[in-house]
Amino acid sequence: MRTIRVIGIGTGDPEQLTLQAVRALSEVDAVFVLDKGSEKADLVALRREICARHAKAGLRFVVAGDPERERRPADYAGTVEAWHAARASLLEALIADELGAGEVGAFLVWGDPALYDSTLRILERITARGRLAFACEVVPGISSVQVLAARHRIPLNRIGAPVHITTGRRLAAGLDPEADSTVVMLDADPRFDHLDPELTIYWGAYLGTRDEILRSGRLGTVGPEIRRVRAEARARHGWIMDTYLLRKPGAE
Amino acid sequence: MRTIRVIGIGTGDPEQLTLQAVRALSEVDAVFVLDKGSEKADLVALRREICARHAKAGLRFVVAGDPERERRPADYAGTVEAWHAARASLLEALIADELGAGEVGAFLVWGDPALYDSTLRILERITARGRLAFACEVVPGISSVQVLAARHRIPLNRIGAPVHITTGRRLAAGLDPEADSTVVMLDADPRFDHLDPELTIYWGAYLGTRDEILRSGRLGTVGPEIRRVRAEARARHGWIMDTYLLRKPGAE
Ligand SMILES: C[S@@+](CC[C@H](N)C(=O)[O-])C[C@H]1O[C@@H](n2cnc3c(N)ncnc32)[C@H](O)[C@@H]1O
Ligand SMILES: C[S@@+](CC[C@H](N)C(=O)[O-])C[C@H]1O[C@@H](n2cnc3c(N)ncnc32)[C@H](O)[C@@H]1O
Repeated sequence: MRTIRVIGIGTGDPEQLTLQAVRALSEVDAVFVLDKGSEKADLVALRREICARHAKAGLRFVVAGDPERERRPADYAGTVEAWHAARASLLEALIADELGAGEVGAFLVWGDPALYDSTLRILERITARGRLAFACEVVPGISSVQVLAARHRIPLNRIGAPVHITTGRRLAAGLDPEADSTVVMLDADPRFDHLDPELTIYWGAYLGTRDEILRSGRLGTVGPEIRRVRAEARARHGWIMDTYLLRKPGAE
Repeated sequence: MRTIRVIGIGTGDPEQLTLQAVRALSEVDAVFVLDKGSEKADLVALRREICARHAKAGLRFVVAGDPERERRPADYAGTVEAWHAARASLLEALIADELGAGEVGAFLVWGDPALYDSTLRILERITARGRLAFACEVVPGISSVQVLAARHRIPLNRIGAPVHITTGRRLAAGLDPEADSTVVMLDADPRFDHLDPELTIYWGAYLGTRDEILRSGRLGTVGPEIRRVRAEARARHGWIMDTYLLRKPGAE
């Protein structure tokens, strides 16, 4: 029986690894990497650094080209579906070829594997096909949402109130009226014009890395500055990852 | 200048600590503990074990009795407000008395400090009073929500869809109609009768500990079993901590 470990590695600081993740990684024979293109070479480098520190000697790196994907498709769910199917075929073959019976393979997932990451879905698909059997173990990791809150030294929720985690795509349709605190991820181009300028925003980019940038304040006031800082940073690095929390004005 | 570190310690497994938390803890002079009563002695024991492993010799434990609090008040927000004010006075005095200038104090927070925990709010209050100055640093920790997802090997969100995190108290009013995936915390008595029996539930208790219990399935089918298992476990341990995810029926 093969084992696949899906290990959350945090969002940029190798010390965000948990002791559990360190132990899980130390027993791994092969790490599978879905290469997402050269713009995120820094992220591949972090994975290699983590493995150099914690994995056993002779660890194998198996890098798979990621299937092509439309960036702004009309049929979002359908396109993602086709893309996941392609990734599943690719990975099934790769695991079968590169991982021996009794060996342990791992995926090192950015942040936490439970949040906007497709690794678990792809493995679930492979299992559902029934051609390749493996045990699957998940080790949680610190997500960008948590680093955002930690750096701003804020709780995500207000007392007894809910927290909504959503995407830039959904935010374009406006805030959920029930939402007291809303975390936005995967926003390729944050525009704040359609939102209440009285909202408080807590924004963070490259969280957990040396390049971290933080801004917070009244949305109507700091929103334009965030857009400016973001555009500059993105141009400088070639890529950006940022997350923000929007909160209704009011007490704690 | 004093420093206060708010360190997330995960939900029961000492190996959920991050390397960052281990390092942060190794430099601490005094750990402040708000004692929440004997029923959670197991949780205080975990903190002591973590300190024994990672803190420096001579670490001081400062245990403060937690001010009394009504468990099911009519005016929820108001009662919590008074309780936080009392905790802030208590802690301000304790930090001033027990932590020397230049020393580092810490709070070891269950799970992640950003999720339904009052430590950051209390420290914010102390700062706002302006009588005691200290630097504040937050180290994120693995939350029970993440352990729930990891143990069930599921993502929290569906593809491109939002995740709502809420409390048992709010769930009593029904699911937010926008909610595709809803995580429920702080539910002292889960009742599922007012919810759609076609929802899928992923439930976990004592997550991360040796006593972990997991159940999942169609809410109408496993809901009654979860209530039974929960009541039994609670009686046996004297306390229970559980969390669950409710998801609308449908594809990935
Ligand atoms: C595909 S999702 C993966 C999320 C990841 N699994 C996690 O737990 O953080 C990518 C999104 O996460 C957020 N993100 C990831 N890393 C980040 C970082 N270092 N700083 C800020 N945001 C980050 C951004 O919103 C980005 O668009
Ligand atoms: C006061 S909140 C603290 C949450 C914590 N800060 C976290 O990040 O998980 C307590 C609630 O968290 C959840 N919880 C905490 N630890 C848990 C565990 N080990 N297993 C299941 N649920 C847990 C339960 O819903 C409980 O009512």
